[in-house]
Parts: sequence; structure tokens; C-alpha cells
Amino acid sequence: MKSVRLIICGFGRVGRAFAELVCRKCEKLARDYDLRLCVTAVVDVGGAAVCTAGLDVPGLLAHVRGGGAVEGFGPFGRPGLASREVLSAGIGDVLVETTPTNIVDGEPGLTHLRTALSHGLSVATASKGPLVLRFRELQALARAHGARLMLSAATAAALPTLDVGLTCLAGAEVLKAEGILNGTTNYILTRMDLDGATYAQALAEAQHLGIAEPDPSLDVEGRDTANKVLLIANCVFGASLTLADISVRGIAEVTPADLAAARAQGKTVKLIGRIERAEGGVVASVAPEAIPLDHPLGGVRGTEKALTYLTDTMGAVTISGGKSNPVGAAAALLKDLINLSR
Amino acid sequence: MKSVRLIICGFGRVGRAFAELVCRKCEKLARDYDLRLCVTAVVDVGGAAVCTAGLDVPGLLAHVRGGGAVEGFGPFGRPGLASREVLSAGIGDVLVETTPTNIVDGEPGLTHLRTALSHGLSVATASKGPLVLRFRELQALARAHGARLMLSAATAAALPTLDVGLTCLAGAEVLKAEGILNGTTNYILTRMDLDGATYAQALAEAQHLGIAEPDPSLDVEGRDTANKVLLIANCVFGASLTLADISVRGIAEVTPADLAAARAQGKTVKLIGRIERAEGGVVASVAPEAIPLDHPLGGVRGTEKALTYLTDTMGAVTISGGKSNPVGAAAALLKDLINLSR
Repeated sequence: MKSVRLIICGFGRVGRAFAELVCRKCEKLARDYDLRLCVTAVVDVGGAAVCTAGLDVPGLLAHVRGGGAVEGFGPFGRPGLASREVLSAGIGDVLVETTPTNIVDGEPGLTHLRTALSHGLSVATASKGPLVLRFRELQALARAHGARLMLSAATAAALPTLDVGLTCLAGAEVLKAEGILNGTTNYILTRMDLDGATYAQALAEAQHLGIAEPDPSLDVEGRDTANKVLLIANCVFGASLTLADISVRGIAEVTPADLAAARAQGKTVKLIGRIERAEGGVVASVAPEAIPLDHPLGGVRGTEKALTYLTDTMGAVTISGGKSNPVGAAAALLKDLINLSR
Repeated sequence: MKSVRLIICGFGRVGRAFAELVCRKCEKLARDYDLRLCVTAVVDVGGAAVCTAGLDVPGLLAHVRGGGAVEGFGPFGRPGLASREVLSAGIGDVLVETTPTNIVDGEPGLTHLRTALSHGLSVATASKGPLVLRFRELQALARAHGARLMLSAATAAALPTLDVGLTCLAGAEVLKAEGILNGTTNYILTRMDLDGATYAQALAEAQHLGIAEPDPSLDVEGRDTANKVLLIANCVFGASLTLADISVRGIAEVTPADLAAARAQGKTVKLIGRIERAEGGVVASVAPEAIPLDHPLGGVRGTEKALTYLTDTMGAVTISGGKSNPVGAAAALLKDLINLSR
């Protein structure tokens, strides 16, 4: 059986969901994939818990759920031990990065990824910041050190945007991609379309239901969609885009009248992330668009996400669905680890 | 660069489309995948063309398009040379199997697959017959000889049913799959639903357009769907089903009144292939079902196909689209070869 040693950085909702999943799927991993995942360290803001023989993950989860800090986990707790030291100690094969996304400077994830990759550790990450800011640098670092960089969890979680583009469509030329990549904005537009709500009403309802954040700007301004568009363009289209290359318009100015006008033409308004090959390279944008109801993306409702790839030899292939909660992100991390080990 | 020697068995529409694709994608394969595909033999009914240094594939295609037989291809033609001899001669790494599907005894594909796998050649196949009849035997043969058996092209061609189940959902428990897996029957049902045609009218139109075969029984009786259901159940669910285990009902008895009644309830009738885990194993069936219009499969129209997987940790993931013409099948073969070489 292949044994892979994991270092988990970040132990918030996604990190904990991932740790739970590793425990819950232990038998399945052995039976179906001949794989054993061994968590040798967990690093959080105040320090780390380390056991080179493999941490007692259920014990650590219980300790943390009871209000304890990672670095206070009995004899394994190492208050103040920094991620940089853990990642360069030769005690892990893969970094599982789950610190919160930071689009300003990518930290602390960016330092984690640089440290891990430059020590030859592969990475599975749920954190968009470092990827959005430094994808090409990180990819080159991985190649130079014989490591791999897996980012399913950062790119629509359980909706397999990258796997489909890179594996299922291998050999085809991907000409275009268009997607509904943000569940919050799709929920708001669906409510406006089906129930005639105003933008403000639909947003308030989404916030009330916990679908939208108290500060919804990342979603409604289209920036979350732009982050995913950037990663898909750079991974699947081989582009080298930065956020400044993507024209972004959000949904705040969409009115019930826009939706009614679209519907009168058999269309509906969706926030579309779009990537196309053009002369001189790859062009990407995010904007509300009226699309036909019988378009593959026209029936994608509520918090559902979807992506259509147009190819030369395989026609159009659309994927939709996939949980994007912490369990979905954790499942995407686990999926990447399994495929990494094959 | 990695070089892979291919033996193509069958040189009809799919075999030729594949050979064309290998030529057309030569540069892309080298650039994007560091891969060179070298066709060392093509075998057809009357014999073979063989060149251990690599056949002139554009020349062979021109020869065949001009009415020539494979075995009459200049100094490389070998009239009467049998596939068994070619496959056991040590001149290939992978068999690309494209002979016509034969569900009665699986031949000649079954013998090709057995010969190739038992000599350690991996297989990429577009032919359902051998797989439907002998999947477990062939899978065991592959494992015993360190070879791999790739069957994307036999399982809905460019719609990535198996890749998604095995790669994109790795680590998740696939609880259920339901799909529209046959384009002809979906075309007929769509015409009946949207235009009020009778079954006989819609079938006649599909035949006129070349969508349905002159003998449409394989499609309309649900047997083509059952073949795909069987392969998905055995590959993705780890089942060991035979066709006798699948209850199959086709669409011949669906009436305009059934569709009208469904529509009155916000539903539409689709031919659904269904796979579920149940006590005592995996249960599969094919039957027309009324499904809600807002179900992920409810908006799949015309010759389009789609499949929804329900999982424990990733939610529901649906794929739709994908060409199923010879180019789509050839692209699926090429995709499998690329993923095999990674």
C-alpha cells in the first residue's frame, strides 16, 4: 500500500472537514485506491501539532471542537512552531493548504506553497489567493522540484472544472469556456427571474439564508467568478492572465426589467465567466449576459454552478452541480490527493 | 519524448477518423503531452498493413479513400495476415480496437482484446461487444499482464461518463447514476414532446435525417442504453452485472398522451438508464420515466446525452453534451491514449 504523509496548513472549516474526511474514508482509500493518508502535522495560527508517526486525527478534532488550540494538543502540540519550519522538516510528502483566501498578497498561503514546492512537496490547495496572484511562478516552482500543484478545491470545489478540461478533454482543442461559477450571484438572479424580486430583495434574502456573506462584494461584483476564470484560463487554456487582464462587471445593476426583457425573448440573465481564444492570446471576461433558456447554462438555477467547454473534436461538454460547502471543498482536496498518487 | 506504438484493428469510419486525428494532432501531442503516437500496423478484414518503423498514415488513408484495401498498401500490405499474428508480434504497445460492435459473441473484437491483453498490450476500444459480454474477464486479464483497458469511446464517446466517475469523483461514494445515454431515442422523445408528433412520425423523421438506423431496434428498445449502463455500473460502481441483470423497456409504447400528461405536471418523458446501490449489490434498469423539467436531465433535448452522478461528499454532478459521431469516438480514443501515457 502506498502511504502519503500530509501536512495540513489551516484548520478552519475546510481544514477540519478535510481531516474528518480522511478519517471517514480510511477504509475506502485502502480498498479502492491502495492508499494510506497519514497526517504528520497540522499547522494553525498559534503553532502546530506534529507526530511523524501520524497524528491521532480524531483526537485532534475532538480537542479542537472542545475549544482547544492545535498547538495545545497534548504532547504533540508545538506552540509557536511556524509553518515554514514544519514544511521544511522532511516530515511530509504533500501540503494540504486550507488557509483563508487572501487576494491582496496571498499570505499566508503563498509562503506555504513556495516553501512546500521548493522542498519537493506536492500541493493540494483550496486557497485561491496564491494561485490567482502567482500561478505561473508556482507552476514553474513545482516543475523545477518534481512536485505537483493540484487546485481543484480552489476552482469551484466539487464541480470538476479543471479535471474535465485537462483529463476528460485531453487531446481536444478547447476553443471556448463559459460558465456560471458563483452560486451566490446565481441564486440572486434566479430569485429575480422566477419571483420578480429586486436585486436588493434577493440579496437580503440570500444573506438571511447564509448564502451571501454579510459583505457580499466579492461575489456580487464578479470578483470571485473572475478568480475562477483566471485559474481555468491559465490551467486549461495555457494562458498567463492576471486579474488586470479580465474585464469584470457584477450583477448589482441588473434590474427586474432586464430579466423581464430577456424572458420575453426566451432568455434569462446569468453572470457568465467567459474565456475565448482570440488573435494574440486568450481573452477572459465576467459580465451579466442574457442567454437562451435552452442553452446548457440557461436551466442552471439557484446556487448551482456549471461550465461549458467548446472543443474542436468533442463538441460542447457541460458540467453542472457539485457541492461547494466545506465538505465539497474537502472532497475536492481528497480527489486531488488520490489522483496525485495514481 | 515518449513514443507509443499503436496497432489499429478495424479501419471503418471510427478507425479512419482516429487515424486522421493522430496525423492532425501530431504537433499538439508533442507540444502539450510530450507524446508521439506511431502506427505500426492497421488490420482490416482482408489482412494488414505493417511497418515497424511507423506506417505512412496519410498515405494509407489516401490509398483506402481511393478504394484500395488495407492489405494492398504497396510494400507494406500483407494480404491474409491475421490480427492474432500482428498482435502477438511484439510490434505494438497499445491496441486501438474499432471493429463493429457485436453483442452476440463479441467477435472479432473479443479475440483482439484477449490476444492484446495477454501479450501485455494495453487497449483503447470503441467496441462495446467484448466489454458488455466479458468485462470482468478482460479486466482481470489486463491486471494479470500489467496492461490497461480504456473504454471511454465505447461508453458514450466524447461524453466523459467513465472519466468523471473514476477520476473527477475519486474518493466520493457514487450512490446513484441516472442518464440519457442514447441520442436517437432522446431525439424522438423531444420531437414528441415539443411538437406533438407520434412515436411513428418522430421515428420516421429521425430515420430520414440519418439520426436513427433503418433498423432502429438497438436504440428504441433501450438495448444500446443498457449496454452503456452495464459498462458504467461495472466500471464506476464496481458491479459485475451482465445484460440479463438489467431490466430494459424501450420507448415504442410512449404516446403523445403520456407526454401531455407529464407536461401537465411540469415533467417530460425521457429514456433513463439508472444505476443504484441497493441491499445485495448494484441494481440497474432502463425505462421511459417522467422527470421534472427542472431536473438536470429535464432540459436535455434532441440528440444530446447526459449523465448525473449522485455522491456522498460532492453532491450531484451532471455532465452533458459531447459528440458521438466517428470524430467524437476517435477523440475519445485519443483522450484515453493520452491519459494512458501520463
